[in-house]
Amino acid sequence: MKIIIQRDRLVQSVNDVLKAVSTRTTIPILTGIKLKANEEGVSLTGSDSDISIESYIPSEEEGNELVEIKETGSIVLPARFFAEIVKKLPENSVEIEVHAHLQTIIRSGKAEYKLNGLNADDYPQLPQIEEENMYAMPIDLLKTIIRQTIFAVSTSETRPVLTGVNWRIEDGQLICIATDSHRLAMRKTAISGNGNSHSVVVPGKSLSELSKILDDTDEEIQMIFTENQVLFKSKNLLFFSRLLEGNYPDTSRLIPNESKTDVRINTKELLHAIDRASLLARESRNNVVKLSTLEGSYIEISSHTPEVGTVTEEILTHSIEGEELKISFSAKYMMDALKALDVTEVTINFTGAMRPFVLKGVEDESMLQLILPVRTY
Amino acid sequence: MKIIIQRDRLVQSVNDVLKAVSTRTTIPILTGIKLKANEEGVSLTGSDSDISIESYIPSEEEGNELVEIKETGSIVLPARFFAEIVKKLPENSVEIEVHAHLQTIIRSGKAEYKLNGLNADDYPQLPQIEEENMYAMPIDLLKTIIRQTIFAVSTSETRPVLTGVNWRIEDGQLICIATDSHRLAMRKTAISGNGNSHSVVVPGKSLSELSKILDDTDEEIQMIFTENQVLFKSKNLLFFSRLLEGNYPDTSRLIPNESKTDVRINTKELLHAIDRASLLARESRNNVVKLSTLEGSYIEISSHTPEVGTVTEEILTHSIEGEELKISFSAKYMMDALKALDVTEVTINFTGAMRPFVLKGVEDESMLQLILPVRTY
Repeated sequence: MKIIIQRDRLVQSVNDVLKAVSTRTTIPILTGIKLKANEEGVSLTGSDSDISIESYIPSEEEGNELVEIKETGSIVLPARFFAEIVKKLPENSVEIEVHAHLQTIIRSGKAEYKLNGLNADDYPQLPQIEEENMYAMPIDLLKTIIRQTIFAVSTSETRPVLTGVNWRIEDGQLICIATDSHRLAMRKTAISGNGNSHSVVVPGKSLSELSKILDDTDEEIQMIFTENQVLFKSKNLLFFSRLLEGNYPDTSRLIPNESKTDVRINTKELLHAIDRASLLARESRNNVVKLSTLEGSYIEISSHTPEVGTVTEEILTHSIEGEELKISFSAKYMMDALKALDVTEVTINFTGAMRPFVLKGVEDESMLQLILPVRTY
Repeated sequence: MKIIIQRDRLVQSVNDVLKAVSTRTTIPILTGIKLKANEEGVSLTGSDSDISIESYIPSEEEGNELVEIKETGSIVLPARFFAEIVKKLPENSVEIEVHAHLQTIIRSGKAEYKLNGLNADDYPQLPQIEEENMYAMPIDLLKTIIRQTIFAVSTSETRPVLTGVNWRIEDGQLICIATDSHRLAMRKTAISGNGNSHSVVVPGKSLSELSKILDDTDEEIQMIFTENQVLFKSKNLLFFSRLLEGNYPDTSRLIPNESKTDVRINTKELLHAIDRASLLARESRNNVVKLSTLEGSYIEISSHTPEVGTVTEEILTHSIEGEELKISFSAKYMMDALKALDVTEVTINFTGAMRPFVLKGVEDESMLQLILPVRTY
């Protein structure tokens, strides 16, 4: 293999595939990045066997030559070193040449690296995925959906299936649900595609890495599901993730149909008041703040930590309907939910101090956040 | 005590004095910030007993009212909470009022905090320093001097005196020296003042915190030395630091008077080449790179780590005079020294592969960096 490649484009591809490379792998070759040059361009691959990322650099793009292929071939180079080296090369033109014994020369300006490579034939094959069950949506919508649900996945491995986000596709609609059993985030959106109904669980970590790699554009990304893999496919990028095994719990019973107290309030005002109250709550184990309805459409947000002190703040709501209420909950869960909602005004439907409550945008059914309260009375 | 104070100014003062507050202190009251309001303004104090910082907010500045003093008095508030609270207060006007039992109300907009305070009489007194032995220099020069020497202090406590920077004042000149016994940084500058000759050792940590607090301005800062304290004094700021005990070693014998190979080279080109070579060197224990003189005014920077590979880079120097040379040294020390020098072109005077070598700006005697080589041949 011998190529001359543009440094800046190489740096970007290396950084993308590096997100799949783990330093803690037990499979030595997966600490490397695979480079493969054919007549049309160069592909880079990184993998930790759960996630695999392939980034493609075509020889030519929009009339610019990105890679000159002198000789086709492939090699696996140590990922961390290769990434640091390409970032610091002095010139924008980089020559990569594989010599005998897999020794690889990287040359740029007067700087020359000789790296010990590994045999690309020993690198695991990417999953073969047939293009059935294919869906598509704009990249920026996908990123929004990920951001609005991913924070609610469980970080505990006691129920592994809860560390993922449940993606259900039914009748042209995608429903994404995440829960750690203390709170739940749900987002619905229309989706185009040719596949059957599907219910899969995508690891939270995979969605988080995918989101970091994707630029904010309204270009389409394709999604292809198999029994145990999902492939996200955009221009010059393949992102494979293993799916989580096991049945995702039926969360529909969790969501209350009725409510006893309905509060409509400016999202930012509530968010900032909770943030301020949580400063003292953070000291105590649970990061708990209290919300109480007051006369005249006011609510009070408060928190008390005996050693440190007390904080109270009143906020004028848009409206309070129904019963009086005093309820305690995790400040963190509340802030996460309010931030995810992306709305100016939020409706909170409470069903008493001991029952889960629901946050939605006003007259917006596309998204729902549910939080279990904390018993303090 | 009861005051109404501008939030933004309070936040800045709290952040400044917070730099002296340690969470790991054994003296409980030092986890707090002392506030003291008199008729003219409010002072805030933080201390870890090594460093003490006092920031003063006058009632009025340039016609703007910064503090309204309703009632003079003083209180100690928990530093971390107080800092986070003031940062997040909703309005720019903040009321602080001490009630019975030292309970302190902080009010801004509709947010109200009650914090448990401590008695300010129990807070340690700041050192009383007489204004003898007083010197002055512009703040930006002081910050530059600190940056150019502080990186070379020792991080090991085996010789505590080496964790500080030696400041010697003689004949209107300040000489700052730092060494960890593997390298040495020296900076000289003219200084104005009325004191006698002085040689003190200022803790590296103190200089680092001082530098963070000071803005980049050419306003004057005063420095007052006593036997065991130094006070830096600028407008509205007092910064006290304990001095290190013990005699600073005589470093003048370390600096060679003659040289056998003299290289003059562009600082940035050398710095970047060392940086690139160190990518591979970092893997090995010592982060060692090699410099070899070549024919035709070239030098070669190289590094070799058997498991990973090799890097070599040639650089055209301005000139090489004297004997041929192959020498190995720490890439980190070399990069630290080159960055500190602040010059376009550097002269390196070598006295053989086993002797310390000296870096200076071309025709610049105000600064010197010395590095001990590593034996690899």
